[in-house]
Amino acid sequence: MENFDFYNPTKIIFGKNRLGELDSLVPKDAKVLILYGGGSVKKYGTLKKVSDSLKNREIIEFGGIEPNPKYETLIKAVDIVKNENIDFLLAVGGGSVIDGVKFINLAANYQGNSPSDLLSDSSAQAKVITSLPMGTIITLPATGSEMNSGGVITYQHGKHVIMNPVLFPQFSMIDPTLTYTLPAIQVANGVVDTFIHVVEQYVTYPNEGRFQDRTAEGILLTLIEIGKQTINNPTDYDARANLSWCSTMALNGLIGSGVPTDWSTHMIGHELTAMFGIDHGQTLAIILPSLWEIRKDKKRDKLIQYAERVWNINDVDDNAKIEMAIAKTRDFFESLGIKTHMSDYGITSDKIDNIIEALEAHGLTALSETKDLTPEISRKILENAM
Amino acid sequence: MENFDFYNPTKIIFGKNRLGELDSLVPKDAKVLILYGGGSVKKYGTLKKVSDSLKNREIIEFGGIEPNPKYETLIKAVDIVKNENIDFLLAVGGGSVIDGVKFINLAANYQGNSPSDLLSDSSAQAKVITSLPMGTIITLPATGSEMNSGGVITYQHGKHVIMNPVLFPQFSMIDPTLTYTLPAIQVANGVVDTFIHVVEQYVTYPNEGRFQDRTAEGILLTLIEIGKQTINNPTDYDARANLSWCSTMALNGLIGSGVPTDWSTHMIGHELTAMFGIDHGQTLAIILPSLWEIRKDKKRDKLIQYAERVWNINDVDDNAKIEMAIAKTRDFFESLGIKTHMSDYGITSDKIDNIIEALEAHGLTALSETKDLTPEISRKILENAM
Repeated sequence: MENFDFYNPTKIIFGKNRLGELDSLVPKDAKVLILYGGGSVKKYGTLKKVSDSLKNREIIEFGGIEPNPKYETLIKAVDIVKNENIDFLLAVGGGSVIDGVKFINLAANYQGNSPSDLLSDSSAQAKVITSLPMGTIITLPATGSEMNSGGVITYQHGKHVIMNPVLFPQFSMIDPTLTYTLPAIQVANGVVDTFIHVVEQYVTYPNEGRFQDRTAEGILLTLIEIGKQTINNPTDYDARANLSWCSTMALNGLIGSGVPTDWSTHMIGHELTAMFGIDHGQTLAIILPSLWEIRKDKKRDKLIQYAERVWNINDVDDNAKIEMAIAKTRDFFESLGIKTHMSDYGITSDKIDNIIEALEAHGLTALSETKDLTPEISRKILENAM
Repeated sequence: MENFDFYNPTKIIFGKNRLGELDSLVPKDAKVLILYGGGSVKKYGTLKKVSDSLKNREIIEFGGIEPNPKYETLIKAVDIVKNENIDFLLAVGGGSVIDGVKFINLAANYQGNSPSDLLSDSSAQAKVITSLPMGTIITLPATGSEMNSGGVITYQHGKHVIMNPVLFPQFSMIDPTLTYTLPAIQVANGVVDTFIHVVEQYVTYPNEGRFQDRTAEGILLTLIEIGKQTINNPTDYDARANLSWCSTMALNGLIGSGVPTDWSTHMIGHELTAMFGIDHGQTLAIILPSLWEIRKDKKRDKLIQYAERVWNINDVDDNAKIEMAIAKTRDFFESLGIKTHMSDYGITSDKIDNIIEALEAHGLTALSETKDLTPEISRKILENAM
């Protein structure tokens, strides 16, 4: 096991009917900026319940944070935070809203030239050492952003990672019933996103992180058990609660502590979203099976472990285990309604050059747990994913 | 799944050769009280390294915190904290030292009559709302005290639980190499203690906590894999690192969130330690298999799940699964050198009346996940454990 630090101070309030507790979580005298996305939290009444719970506090609302939140949108909220002397940021929405609010917080507390520095030069992020207290009410189980200190922001046609310990939410409320109204495709994307967060911290090379491995396998087994069920029966509380808690646990630092991680599927997938507007979860479902096919020798031992423990494939030789495990993974994504080939989304092979150029422009030329996934290999992965 | 809150702000610094980082973890101008136990941290040089790392800070040392730490010992340190205007408490030792330091912190910040109130009347504990910052350097993997806000203190021949959110350590350093010098029996006790912390949050009744169940099973499987190995080969880093991390994860709130818990084995075991001085881990190994035998109908579904997933017992009927799983659990403890019957420790059946009286005197008359484990049932468990 490698040396590691683990720190996660976010308080989780999990379960049904807990919005009323906001009153005790947000300071009584705070001036609160509530931030949300496309309006479904308004439509389904969540925003009203949130405001009601924050009785007697001065509240300003800022809506319209889009999926893959854009710098240009977020920067408008930064002005509000500064001009209105906001004391508390409350994100109500999915990962994009929470990621966006984290950037707003970072930018509002940045003392340098322009907030765009924070995206164009990632070393600028560490200069921010204070932040406003921030709470979240998550309405889409997927990104884990409600219990970590990172986010992804769209800027100049690229997706940029922000990460800073001051960005941990002070609290996050996870009420699975708030996700009942989600479209099936978004839930399916969430299952896939969670699944891939896990395997990116697990299917690397063995290094004796037994707790981490078993916990990762536990999340994967749970997703396989409840994935289809929670898409087909959105109001099955226990299935949705298990998806919600697994998605939080998948990316809060727990299973990645002390073990190698390989974020190449996310990095290549981000380019597909930035370039073609494909949903984040869908891009991951395209890249992962293909990446494993191309990198199966590098990941051999862990792919065998994954085959045995997650898919219960035991009575064949090791090569067959790997092939079957990759096929089962692809079938699982497809069974949820998420297609796994580029051509399914209308991307033709002549676009691969552009994708490789984008990876190079963003400095993503040495990806993976061993830093040897070059643009040449990314090209093979993309060709294989057609 | 039940509603729950999860909050754990302790920063973990895990791995080899990290004592030097204390300098950046403890404020430069702090007056530090270093607390330890019987002197092995002195003998093996850990204390010297800790002091060296805290260069230029004023340091006072307080040794002699015994296993099952006593009120009378701890209260002496409370006087030092107050009279010397201590700013930071640093515990160096096992669970008893850390539990003791938590009580010292609680007592030093208690405004009521006498610190003994905190043990005789558990409602007094909640009156403490501030505490000194506290760090720990753990030298015995077992109790999980390094990453939770609870402890157990011996007072007037009873063991008393303290619990307060202000008692989370600010940081805990977990260096598995610091445990290499432990006697084998203490490591064995640690494996058993960790194992039983897990099953007390897992072998109850089903309630759809799939992440929690799988994570609990992962810790149990790991302990079975590395338990004997880490006792026999104390300097096998990876085995000891896995034991260390599992013991922290077993009792930091993670696997018990949203699921029923049954602490009766600990509660009955505490009386055996208080009355006969038997090691904590040993008392648990005596009580657990017997408790399961007596309560196997109540715990039927989870015992079957435990048999299948942890011990891989599949090809027999359900009753046989349960019997075999209990037998395998007992055999596992015995294989580590921990005896599982009261008579092995010289306790005769005429003492059972006294144990039941102690349970009643301490109000432990409605134990278990369903609060229906009466003194009558405790008696059966003890008789069955002879």
